[in-house]
Amino acid sequence: MSSADFATAVTKRPQQEVAMPLIASNIKFTQATNPQKVPQVDSNEIWAQNVSSDHMLTCQWTTERGWDAPEIKPVADLNISPLASCLHYATQCFEGMKVYRGFDGKIRLFRPELNAKRLAMSAKCVSLPQFDADELVKLIMALVQIESPKWLQKPGSFLYIRPALIGNDAQLGVRVPKKATLFILLMCWPDFSKSNLRLLTSRGDAIRAWPGGFGHAKVGANYGPSFVLHDEAVQAGYDQVLWLFGPEGQVTEAGASNFFAVIRSRETGRHQLLTAPLDEKIILDGVTRRSVIELVKANLANELEVVESSFTMSDLQVAWEEGRFLEAFVSGTAFFITKVAAIQYNHQDLDLPQNDDPIATNYGSSIRSWLHNIMFGKEQHEWGVVVDMEASNISY
Amino acid sequence: MSSADFATAVTKRPQQEVAMPLIASNIKFTQATNPQKVPQVDSNEIWAQNVSSDHMLTCQWTTERGWDAPEIKPVADLNISPLASCLHYATQCFEGMKVYRGFDGKIRLFRPELNAKRLAMSAKCVSLPQFDADELVKLIMALVQIESPKWLQKPGSFLYIRPALIGNDAQLGVRVPKKATLFILLMCWPDFSKSNLRLLTSRGDAIRAWPGGFGHAKVGANYGPSFVLHDEAVQAGYDQVLWLFGPEGQVTEAGASNFFAVIRSRETGRHQLLTAPLDEKIILDGVTRRSVIELVKANLANELEVVESSFTMSDLQVAWEEGRFLEAFVSGTAFFITKVAAIQYNHQDLDLPQNDDPIATNYGSSIRSWLHNIMFGKEQHEWGVVVDMEASNISY
Repeated sequence: MSSADFATAVTKRPQQEVAMPLIASNIKFTQATNPQKVPQVDSNEIWAQNVSSDHMLTCQWTTERGWDAPEIKPVADLNISPLASCLHYATQCFEGMKVYRGFDGKIRLFRPELNAKRLAMSAKCVSLPQFDADELVKLIMALVQIESPKWLQKPGSFLYIRPALIGNDAQLGVRVPKKATLFILLMCWPDFSKSNLRLLTSRGDAIRAWPGGFGHAKVGANYGPSFVLHDEAVQAGYDQVLWLFGPEGQVTEAGASNFFAVIRSRETGRHQLLTAPLDEKIILDGVTRRSVIELVKANLANELEVVESSFTMSDLQVAWEEGRFLEAFVSGTAFFITKVAAIQYNHQDLDLPQNDDPIATNYGSSIRSWLHNIMFGKEQHEWGVVVDMEASNISY
Repeated sequence: MSSADFATAVTKRPQQEVAMPLIASNIKFTQATNPQKVPQVDSNEIWAQNVSSDHMLTCQWTTERGWDAPEIKPVADLNISPLASCLHYATQCFEGMKVYRGFDGKIRLFRPELNAKRLAMSAKCVSLPQFDADELVKLIMALVQIESPKWLQKPGSFLYIRPALIGNDAQLGVRVPKKATLFILLMCWPDFSKSNLRLLTSRGDAIRAWPGGFGHAKVGANYGPSFVLHDEAVQAGYDQVLWLFGPEGQVTEAGASNFFAVIRSRETGRHQLLTAPLDEKIILDGVTRRSVIELVKANLANELEVVESSFTMSDLQVAWEEGRFLEAFVSGTAFFITKVAAIQYNHQDLDLPQNDDPIATNYGSSIRSWLHNIMFGKEQHEWGVVVDMEASNISY
């Protein structure tokens, strides 16, 4: 047998006919016997990002059987073969979303179908199995139904949701995994949006993502190699790296969040909201990013023009020097909408206008309020998807 | 506490004074009680790349303690927290090397210090802990000492060695891991070098690595995102993807191996060995690649000029059309030295001259013999490092 023969034999598999799709209603449940204490808001435990709720959801997939019945069970270590491709070849992708206890007492997700679809897209990028995004949303809701009464008691509280998909067949070949595990965790999470951010632009010799790569997907491969620069930024007193691309210093995204700049156009005098475009696939197609753009187009059409196209740090520096760089903020699930205080570029801190500065705008704050109101049920909006805590379409 | 305060608190740790270095002589040993059967050469089991030897080596690291005592113990699943960064953020790197039973009965590694140093370099790329490369080589030798008598009985046989390092602290923050696990497996491995390879050049919209990225390191992040194109290549009847870079179609590497082309120079009429340079960091700094270059410079200086600089598929196509593309082969631990039969580019198969073709050269075959002789002890050479099976400097 040659390698090509073998590879063909293992990849040309007629599995589509019999493999089961992901079906949320098949869920099994095992109650946790050692429930954990809910940590205090803003405690060290929360900031350590290591406290999960009592239960996790897992679901196994194989090429032969497709998706097994999902299980909700006590959070525990995963048993992973040392040969598993998730440990060697980064066959892994994930999502980040939140579940909110509204001020009306209801439990909501924010546009969960977008995260579920993005996980399926990311899975495709790293040759992991496909699934129906609606079923993933149902699985998330099932876990939320179980955990919310204990872990989301106070109106205004939230948990972070981490769905992840990993390739874990016990073979070392450099090829498409034949086994995978989907798992979903609910995590106690700090509020990263409380203090303004200081960003450090990436060095010219460091690239997070590139055209033709996978920077648009939420795959593990985008993160580990970025830690070195992130750590350098933290050591230098900054919060996140603002990743630039190419010789012109094209602005892409800021660490684990999308980036927005508000400038006054030199030509028209109008306020513009600049953000990197999706077409080169070098930034994440963020759910919060998309929501920001949609809200600005709907609510601020007359005063703030959305410009979703390439711009550079030099553009921003010139605007800053001319007093036209009015505001910057980042968006994302972890950072929500967080104002940027300063950006270091070419060894110079560009301090951005803050509230008492006459030229400062405050669009980020408005957008933040609108989103907050939707997430916590102060405004009824189709983006805030209520989780029905009474009737469940999942029997267990 | 702000995110920056917390990040600073957890990263500015004064751990260097007390943390233990990796020390091979501290090794502990637990005998496997359920020994496995050694599979037949070229059996389906071997091609499945899922048979390891009976024991693995593991070693834990934490920022506080440094490296714990290494353990050799029965191969078993790893218990990994579902929060571990190796599963979410690809904090993972690995090595590929082999151990050979020589025709003189001795057990040899091939330039193991180069793999050990590369693992340390790769670890740095993904913020994983450093170690003394010599100690890693000693750990590999310790495992080899235990497994060779059973798993490498026949002269001419070999096992694949897979050292890997993963970040596995139980926290979901996007930051440098505070815990890691080193593990080493010995695997039964197929001989991929027996049949000539057919390569499919990558599509213009798919890029494996980028200058300023991490394509030169053996990190998981380089592999998972490449499976999609590899699978397309296999489905189309090819063995590996030949990854091109940039609008000019710069030739980089072939799947999990480096790529070499032999052409006759139009200007000088001399034979040239073309291979991509290391300076842009978009190809792996292969141990076999390096050895090929050194051997050609030492043994073939008068007939084959090494040209380690950028070249494009168009260059190769022109050479092919003019009858000057004489030979191509790939090099690597898995593929050793394997001749290339054809390269598909722009929907055209460039069939390369084979042995009966008067223009064909056969440098790959000579290089392969030289390396084979060093690996299997037919030639005594400093690259073939004998593992002393009698006296061990490791007590357990």
